[in-house]
Amino acid sequence: MIHPSALVSSSAKVDEGVEIGPYSIVHENVWIKRDTKVGAYCEIGLPNPLAKKATLEIGEGSVIRSHTVIYSGSSIGPGLHTGHHVCIRENSEISAGVQLGSRTDVQGDCTIGDHSKLHADVHVGKKSRIGSFVWLFPEVLLTNDPMPPSEMLIGPTIEDYCVVASKVLIFPGVTIAANSVIAAGSVVKADIAEWKLATGNPAKPACDVRILRMPGNPKEKAYPWRNRFHRGYPDEVVQAWIEQCQTKGNGK
Amino acid sequence: MIHPSALVSSSAKVDEGVEIGPYSIVHENVWIKRDTKVGAYCEIGLPNPLAKKATLEIGEGSVIRSHTVIYSGSSIGPGLHTGHHVCIRENSEISAGVQLGSRTDVQGDCTIGDHSKLHADVHVGKKSRIGSFVWLFPEVLLTNDPMPPSEMLIGPTIEDYCVVASKVLIFPGVTIAANSVIAAGSVVKADIAEWKLATGNPAKPACDVRILRMPGNPKEKAYPWRNRFHRGYPDEVVQAWIEQCQTKGNGK
Amino acid sequence: MIHPSALVSSSAKVDEGVEIGPYSIVHENVWIKRDTKVGAYCEIGLPNPLAKKATLEIGEGSVIRSHTVIYSGSSIGPGLHTGHHVCIRENSEISAGVQLGSRTDVQGDCTIGDHSKLHADVHVGKKSRIGSFVWLFPEVLLTNDPMPPSEMLIGPTIEDYCVVASKVLIFPGVTIAANSVIAAGSVVKADIAEWKLATGNPAKPACDVRILRMPGNPKEKAYPWRNRFHRGYPDEVVQAWIEQCQTKGNGK
Repeated sequence: MIHPSALVSSSAKVDEGVEIGPYSIVHENVWIKRDTKVGAYCEIGLPNPLAKKATLEIGEGSVIRSHTVIYSGSSIGPGLHTGHHVCIRENSEISAGVQLGSRTDVQGDCTIGDHSKLHADVHVGKKSRIGSFVWLFPEVLLTNDPMPPSEMLIGPTIEDYCVVASKVLIFPGVTIAANSVIAAGSVVKADIAEWKLATGNPAKPACDVRILRMPGNPKEKAYPWRNRFHRGYPDEVVQAWIEQCQTKGNGK
Repeated sequence: MIHPSALVSSSAKVDEGVEIGPYSIVHENVWIKRDTKVGAYCEIGLPNPLAKKATLEIGEGSVIRSHTVIYSGSSIGPGLHTGHHVCIRENSEISAGVQLGSRTDVQGDCTIGDHSKLHADVHVGKKSRIGSFVWLFPEVLLTNDPMPPSEMLIGPTIEDYCVVASKVLIFPGVTIAANSVIAAGSVVKADIAEWKLATGNPAKPACDVRILRMPGNPKEKAYPWRNRFHRGYPDEVVQAWIEQCQTKGNGK
Repeated sequence: MIHPSALVSSSAKVDEGVEIGPYSIVHENVWIKRDTKVGAYCEIGLPNPLAKKATLEIGEGSVIRSHTVIYSGSSIGPGLHTGHHVCIRENSEISAGVQLGSRTDVQGDCTIGDHSKLHADVHVGKKSRIGSFVWLFPEVLLTNDPMPPSEMLIGPTIEDYCVVASKVLIFPGVTIAANSVIAAGSVVKADIAEWKLATGNPAKPACDVRILRMPGNPKEKAYPWRNRFHRGYPDEVVQAWIEQCQTKGNGK
């Protein structure tokens, strides 16, 4: 399951059921857990003097697609899915079931919570904090330098269940509170409160997301999205959402 | 012409005159037609359970530059030119003479008509429809989800001869009708009629494109561009444009 | 120091102390100067009929990270640092100490002065002119075609010490004069004078940058940034800035 052209360090730990594709490189001090598939031309565990630890763990059942680069010094939970040409730098904590689309770049010292899904071309600046069940759509950019160039890197915070639509720019240090939705093309310069739909440049709250209905179906509430969209989440998560919806209404 | 380090499946069909660069991978059920050149580190015909067919055809005389990934399940006409680090997903129909710039991503279930040119960093969301002789400039983003996250993927439609300038964001389901021009940095939230110059956020029609003149030359009409710009198109296409211009004026 | 899997042309000139990573390709007529490190899966010196010369020089002490593509026909000074998946096309003059972030694309016929730092995902259109000590932050896009599609490529000019923040779009032929700062998300459609902070779409001068203070420290002037930010610049450069600041105030 390790392609003969792959260069796997003899001090890397590669669990049972792991596949390593042609021409990929696995450096020392990497632990790839069972049933993970690494595609072709990936470089896993690239050393970097900025890494606070010299190890890299990649959780079980992950899928790392071709031409992806992951530095040493980060911890990645089970079920990571990357697209192609992805970069993950050092000192990040990536929880279970995270998805990173093609060319998405996690620049280091970031946290990403469980089951957050970052589409293609998302740029996560250093020191960003992304909660659980967050959606970041293509070309979302999280910045961190309030007076460039400076050493004051202050990453944004995106709380649980937020949806940030395509091409949104998020300013340094901004907090987007839980369950908010940022419309495509917005520029978020200041904090956004919980449950808001925000839009524009600068992004301003337009309404509570809970008044939005699905296109063509005025009886179906659009948000919280977890009451209606379950594809790709583990059964136990979906079951908890359904029970929560029935008992507490999930934001009604 | 197949580099000895290339990994070409014995069940792939590789026509006469095809070149495969160092370290590239060609999977089974791929048919690469004659005189096509594949650069280094490309992965061609990557299988995917979402593909509706298990084959991939790449037309004759194509040029696929290094680090490009093309999934199985798409059909690509003759004369495709890609830049570097390009991705093409499954179930897309790409016609003759299409150009995809570096890092451009065709995400699947798309159609792209003859001789359309997508520059670098164009992101074509699933189910997009792009006509013939279309220009999409760098960082144009075609989105598809009207209430994210949802299963309602509705790609935009860009009709023939449209020009979409750099960093334009196109909303789900929008139609940009033939011969229109979208100014750089615009956000297209609603349909644009034929022959319009549209600009702004949200993009609104500013004028008919046929009143625009070339910078420094007030006698030369800028649009339809096919009356003045012919580089890179086949002789028979250019000849037809010239005759059409002389007889019908191409939009006069 | 040349990995046995690297394909290095026998007519390439590789100086002492150079490292070439696994699976990388170095074409003929390339001169890689001493102590330069090339990562894995790089293709260096790719020939191109548009190149005005058939050679490529890469200065000493450069670091070229994995999956990077550099065409023949450009000249690169010492101390280039690239991220991953970078492209540099033909006919560009890149001075000493330049930094190009991951996926940044220098599209050809460009000049970049000493110690300019381009972050990730910067797109430098053909014929752009970037001065010395310039900062371009992620997803900055320099365009060049005033009436697309056309043959009138007119790159923008970014003068010395300018700072262009994230996701800024710069129109063809625009000059951003020395020491200016463009706020994130702006669209620069017309020239910006020296020492201005410009913001908005279209970007307009908001104030003189020299009145800005550092966040949390109203006594510290934010610009010129060279009076307060020195990381990554050579000692002699920093020393000159300090002396200049003490004697002439650097813009006071």
